[in-house]
Amino acid sequence: MMQMRTHTCGELRLADAGKSVKIVGWMENVREVGSNFAFVVLRDFYGTTQVVIESEEMMAIIRDLNKESTISVEGVVRERASKNPKLPTGDIEVVPSKIEVLGRCRYNSLPFEINRSREADETQRLKYRYLDLRNPAVKNNIVLRCQVVAALRAAMTEHGFLEITTPILTASSPEGARDYLVPARKHPGKFYALPQAPQQFKQLLMTSGFDRYFQIAPCFRDEDARGDRSPGEFYQLDMEMAFATQEDVFAVLEDVLPPIFAKFGTYDVASAAPFRRIPYNTALETYGSDKPDLRIDLTCKNVTHLFENSEFEPLRGQTVKMVDISDCALTRKQVEKLLSDCEVQSGSKAYWFKVDEKGELAGGIAKFVTGLRSQLEQVLTLAPNTLVVVAAGAAATKSAGVLIKTFGAACAGHMDQERYEFCWIVDFPMYEIGDESGELEFCHNPFSMPSGGLEVLLKAERGEIDPLTITADQYDLVCNGVELSSGAVRNHDPEIMVKAFELVRLGEEDVKKKFPAMYNAFCYGAPPHAGIAPGVDRMVMLLAGESSIREIIPFPMNKNAQDVMMGAPSTVEQKQLDELHIQITAQEEE
Amino acid sequence: MMQMRTHTCGELRLADAGKSVKIVGWMENVREVGSNFAFVVLRDFYGTTQVVIESEEMMAIIRDLNKESTISVEGVVRERASKNPKLPTGDIEVVPSKIEVLGRCRYNSLPFEINRSREADETQRLKYRYLDLRNPAVKNNIVLRCQVVAALRAAMTEHGFLEITTPILTASSPEGARDYLVPARKHPGKFYALPQAPQQFKQLLMTSGFDRYFQIAPCFRDEDARGDRSPGEFYQLDMEMAFATQEDVFAVLEDVLPPIFAKFGTYDVASAAPFRRIPYNTALETYGSDKPDLRIDLTCKNVTHLFENSEFEPLRGQTVKMVDISDCALTRKQVEKLLSDCEVQSGSKAYWFKVDEKGELAGGIAKFVTGLRSQLEQVLTLAPNTLVVVAAGAAATKSAGVLIKTFGAACAGHMDQERYEFCWIVDFPMYEIGDESGELEFCHNPFSMPSGGLEVLLKAERGEIDPLTITADQYDLVCNGVELSSGAVRNHDPEIMVKAFELVRLGEEDVKKKFPAMYNAFCYGAPPHAGIAPGVDRMVMLLAGESSIREIIPFPMNKNAQDVMMGAPSTVEQKQLDELHIQITAQEEE
Repeated sequence: MMQMRTHTCGELRLADAGKSVKIVGWMENVREVGSNFAFVVLRDFYGTTQVVIESEEMMAIIRDLNKESTISVEGVVRERASKNPKLPTGDIEVVPSKIEVLGRCRYNSLPFEINRSREADETQRLKYRYLDLRNPAVKNNIVLRCQVVAALRAAMTEHGFLEITTPILTASSPEGARDYLVPARKHPGKFYALPQAPQQFKQLLMTSGFDRYFQIAPCFRDEDARGDRSPGEFYQLDMEMAFATQEDVFAVLEDVLPPIFAKFGTYDVASAAPFRRIPYNTALETYGSDKPDLRIDLTCKNVTHLFENSEFEPLRGQTVKMVDISDCALTRKQVEKLLSDCEVQSGSKAYWFKVDEKGELAGGIAKFVTGLRSQLEQVLTLAPNTLVVVAAGAAATKSAGVLIKTFGAACAGHMDQERYEFCWIVDFPMYEIGDESGELEFCHNPFSMPSGGLEVLLKAERGEIDPLTITADQYDLVCNGVELSSGAVRNHDPEIMVKAFELVRLGEEDVKKKFPAMYNAFCYGAPPHAGIAPGVDRMVMLLAGESSIREIIPFPMNKNAQDVMMGAPSTVEQKQLDELHIQITAQEEE
Repeated sequence: MMQMRTHTCGELRLADAGKSVKIVGWMENVREVGSNFAFVVLRDFYGTTQVVIESEEMMAIIRDLNKESTISVEGVVRERASKNPKLPTGDIEVVPSKIEVLGRCRYNSLPFEINRSREADETQRLKYRYLDLRNPAVKNNIVLRCQVVAALRAAMTEHGFLEITTPILTASSPEGARDYLVPARKHPGKFYALPQAPQQFKQLLMTSGFDRYFQIAPCFRDEDARGDRSPGEFYQLDMEMAFATQEDVFAVLEDVLPPIFAKFGTYDVASAAPFRRIPYNTALETYGSDKPDLRIDLTCKNVTHLFENSEFEPLRGQTVKMVDISDCALTRKQVEKLLSDCEVQSGSKAYWFKVDEKGELAGGIAKFVTGLRSQLEQVLTLAPNTLVVVAAGAAATKSAGVLIKTFGAACAGHMDQERYEFCWIVDFPMYEIGDESGELEFCHNPFSMPSGGLEVLLKAERGEIDPLTITADQYDLVCNGVELSSGAVRNHDPEIMVKAFELVRLGEEDVKKKFPAMYNAFCYGAPPHAGIAPGVDRMVMLLAGESSIREIIPFPMNKNAQDVMMGAPSTVEQKQLDELHIQITAQEEE
């Protein structure tokens, strides 16, 4: 008999009637229906089973006990008189001959009702996370996370990837975010840093001769909390391949992710390989976003040229983008409500007009566009009952993106919601003109390989091409409008690296300063390599359909970067600080 | 074609002769045998392949290139004239028509020769770890580690365990070792700590209703380096089961570990379930150690009573333990050398005598024991050619343990080396009399369940039993004389916890102070639970047959807790310290 029981609380069926069994778990509920007659719900990890108390002896034990105590129940399985078809164990009940108390709950009132914990105040939930997690609805998200991570591991291993663990105590790096620092006891005045990502280590692994690396990697950024990012630590499905191109990375993830999304997600359909590839500039033009939600069939059209001398002042001489939404049944009031929601999100005002059931332009800014109908019809479809929403101004692209996502979700028939739609955003520009400097600067990641390599950089240097037309072998993975990750073919060649930096008036010293170990390593013969690192937390949020990251982490910190259950962070003893050769310069008020 | 190649460097066989192929890798070696004739060894993660240069055009490319550059080779597979049966690809060679340089190695002399890197200075190896790892002998240990970890995960998952990730930024805890601290930017004067082990979290998971938890868990202790422990981080196969006894934990590991040890280890035999269980006191009496190496067939016998009035002063009135070693062919010189090795290890002098080929006691302290022969023969087997080694004094037990391990390994026929022998050490005493206090104290872990629970503690309190006879449901897993882990049935009951503490003159406040979150949680109804956490690093060392932990970690720190490749720990900017509300009080000299 494993773990004190013959069966779990989710296991007994009608066929077990008559068997002597032992089950263990938490006493979730007691319903007394007579002086020696009560129904007890026993809950364990696997389910619940009804226990029927019918004797004075058993009643005496139960009556004494607070809910949420742990007990073991020995008895006989009996067919229920009134079955509960909603419960897997709803056909049976257990009639006990022996009940033993294993762990007494001292309190007869809990901070919140277990099965309604999601409605409780978040601070209470986090403080009593061990009670919150007893709620199956809360627990199931954690189980889902564990299953997804296990499935990702299994799939990567099946694809010949080796999971290699990289150091957590490492060096402070000049990457984007703020480092968490750890004072080094044996090296006064010096600090380890927790890795923001294993980026350098995985590139060093490639240089070390490993071929296919992955890791469910803990990453640490000392940044304030956001909806989809916990303060502190988060996890990536970090991967890298030697002698690889963008195509190799795409092929692996197109094979690994869809089955896992379809199996574990709220929706059971996911894009098949190959995912759509959309150049960065095309994504902005077509969807007003580099994170398009391809479940929505709307796109935006640039009609700037038609409004150079518009009578309507907000459009005159501005960039103007329109989104035509066929068969739109939204009322004027609904449209205006949605437009004002969009304005809050994008920060810029949007407009509308519609084609009424008779085919006439009407409502909103109709009078300013009626004269342009034939020109508009060259890019828009203006059938009866079409709504057209309009973005204008310097932020027209972003604004159009917000309009598409908002109206796509709100207008029946324009969003095929119950699926996971993946795409790759490709061909990111390598350089841009800096807003402040007015000079050429790196656009995204200076360490991605410029498409075309050294040759194309030399051409730009010689003035044969505009450096702004150079793209990088860099890509984003997007699912349902959520960016899961950026990845790239890395620049593995010190010569190309230095040249890429020279174009923005930097040089070898700057390259070296940023990543000295990596630069040194690349001078000893590096393979071309490429990788990506989809966020585990974001994937699980998408799959669970949760909007708070705290719902998919076993023991999350609160938004203020505290673990209120464990009491972290906390004060420490002076002796500890002395050993670490530091002192504190400020003290939080309690 | 995946990853720029048609085949890996370990893949081509005689059957591939005639095929056009593309292979990529590092140019490991070039042997010029004529002006346009050379043999190139190309190496990738999977193996090596010989490339034969036969044309001036190809020679021109190769001649220019430093070893360890990465290249791609397109050509035709040809049967070799002189085959190399030691190499999987030794039957063929590739005759290139195109060679492309992918990553130039800038240096024509390396810090060490790749394939002899294990002989290089350790600091050089760690500084150029990316070159060291190119050595297949070094790489293979890392691959082994990854495979073992993957196999452990797969086996635990198959046993119904859920891998749950617990926080890395958490609260400082009063456990044994020193914490690594992380200043909390948003909470001046407060610190996170990295977990020494996920002990509290896994017990909280049990209290949260999870049934079978495991995790390949990173653990952090700011302790100085030892042979089998890296400074900084190490990994455990952490596991815990709800409603579980010692038997449940044993059953899982007895099922999980032996196949993995037999498959991945240097030796291909491992103990079958059930492993031997040896009470702690018996282990000390029989093997002089709580970490016996059961591959050795020697045991020690207590003959103290025979030497109360010995003429030989070092034994007189002392604890005396003897180990009889049959069929021992060691010379007197060898025996004395081994005894002096033992003395260095155990810190106490040991003695010997032997039974010569005629059956007479001879050599060493023979003249002091000859008169006791018949009494000795009641516990020892004194056949001809038996060597008897003798430990005496306060440390006789420990000393006997060292004698057993040393002579067992040195005397032919007494050690069945080529196998993994597991055992459980059980029945640890709960209490002891403190050396300094002279009063009752906890012996090992105060939070283990005393065998017999509350009842036995109450008996001790009432004076009905000696508290020193109370054992705990605590256990060690030992393999080949190496302790892999301690585990226990946990004390999940606040009432029993307080009572256990009261016996050593402490109380509820002391329990609460140590683990407040856990104590609070247990008051809300906890299941009995038990677990263990075998050290991953130690297991991999055993399997790889390595004695330095740095051989089985991808990017290890040196003994001085530095990563000399990445330059960790390092100084940081004043701005970073300011944001963290700390300042440094000492500065390491460079």
